Amino acid sequence: MVITKTMQVRTNGNCDIIDITPQAAGFVAESGVLAGTVTLFNVGSTAAITTTEYEPGLVNHDIKAAFEKIAPQNGQYKHEETWNDDNGHSHVRATLLGPSLVVPIVDGKLTLGAWQQIILVDFDTRPRTRQVVCQIMGE
Amino acid sequence: MVITKTMQVRTNGNCDIIDITPQAAGFVAESGVLAGTVTLFNVGSTAAITTTEYEPGLVNHDIKAAFEKIAPQNGQYKHEETWNDDNGHSHVRATLLGPSLVVPIVDGKLTLGAWQQIILVDFDTRPRTRQVVCQIMGE
Amino acid sequence: MVITKTMQVRTNGNCDIIDITPQAAGFVAESGVLAGTVTLFNVGSTAAITTTEYEPGLVNHDIKAAFEKIAPQNGQYKHEETWNDDNGHSHVRATLLGPSLVVPIVDGKLTLGAWQQIILVDFDTRPRTRQVVCQIMGE
Repeated sequence: MVITKTMQVRTNGNCDIIDITPQAAGFVAESGVLAGTVTLFNVGSTAAITTTEYEPGLVNHDIKAAFEKIAPQNGQYKHEETWNDDNGHSHVRATLLGPSLVVPIVDGKLTLGAWQQIILVDFDTRPRTRQVVCQIMGE
Repeated sequence: MVITKTMQVRTNGNCDIIDITPQAAGFVAESGVLAGTVTLFNVGSTAAITTTEYEPGLVNHDIKAAFEKIAPQNGQYKHEETWNDDNGHSHVRATLLGPSLVVPIVDGKLTLGAWQQIILVDFDTRPRTRQVVCQIMGE
Repeated sequence: MVITKTMQVRTNGNCDIIDITPQAAGFVAESGVLAGTVTLFNVGSTAAITTTEYEPGLVNHDIKAAFEKIAPQNGQYKHEETWNDDNGHSHVRATLLGPSLVVPIVDGKLTLGAWQQIILVDFDTRPRTRQVVCQIMGE
């Protein structure tokens, strides 16, 4: 059985981190799938998906600081010369973190830890409404 | 067909890197699945899963050094103010590396290279027993 | 239904970035699968798979620059002492980026954005012919 839904996720951009666990868990519950996987995939090349403990220190400060170190917003990016825009760092960060995440479903539930949430990280430089494909395969 | 098992993986924390290939390969063999995928998922937000060549230089030194540069153990983390703990760097590193890995199964075997092993990297600051969900889907 | 094919991908090494979207999309079209996932997996421990906007600024400069910062080519790597070779940085970078990517298939097509391509990044220090397992599961 394959069931697919696309989530709309509003963000403020600029490394905004959104907890998409409730939407993903709700979709898994609705699907009736008891054993399988859910694939979460961000459509587009300036946002990415992973897991973290969703608490303010990490999501508002520490994760942003790490990405600012890896690919600083005010660095020199040839991408910005190509398009005359300002989001070279956004592309580099999203490329590094990756657009997809696969989480097992066991007994109808995601196998996340108690302090582990699924997050969308929007690296773009403006608010966006993201499309996240949420695809469940299983039985 | 969906078959799930949870591995227990003991670590020393502090960027300890454990080769979990033998357990994953053994589980694939037992399952009888000839074509499909295995999803490996770390439950919790301070460890991550990827592949590497499992040799002492990389696993005891080089990979640790890269993460120490990206998110230094003695850096300033707001996460540590939230919980009054010491593992802000562990969370940031695990968020970056990601909790899940998907490996194809072809002719009943994982499609790893000869010098490519599946590893759990435990970024926490103390020994842990990790739960890694190992889920096989296929036929 | 599980269908597997191995792509051969020629690279120049040294952070050469190859757009493998046409091959993956062609394989999905041939398979006849309308709903499911494609798993792309790089066999070997010095290359990795992710998505990016495939334009010259990013692929010839910006992504390379970020990896040069994370794991410099001329850094000190114990891996190079183990084997007396020169690709310690290649292993560290590939470990970080990861060997696999999962992309949903909806209505027989990959759910990529208009400016989002699937890429193989070859971090090794010489030209290689890479084996990328492309596995489709679905219905």
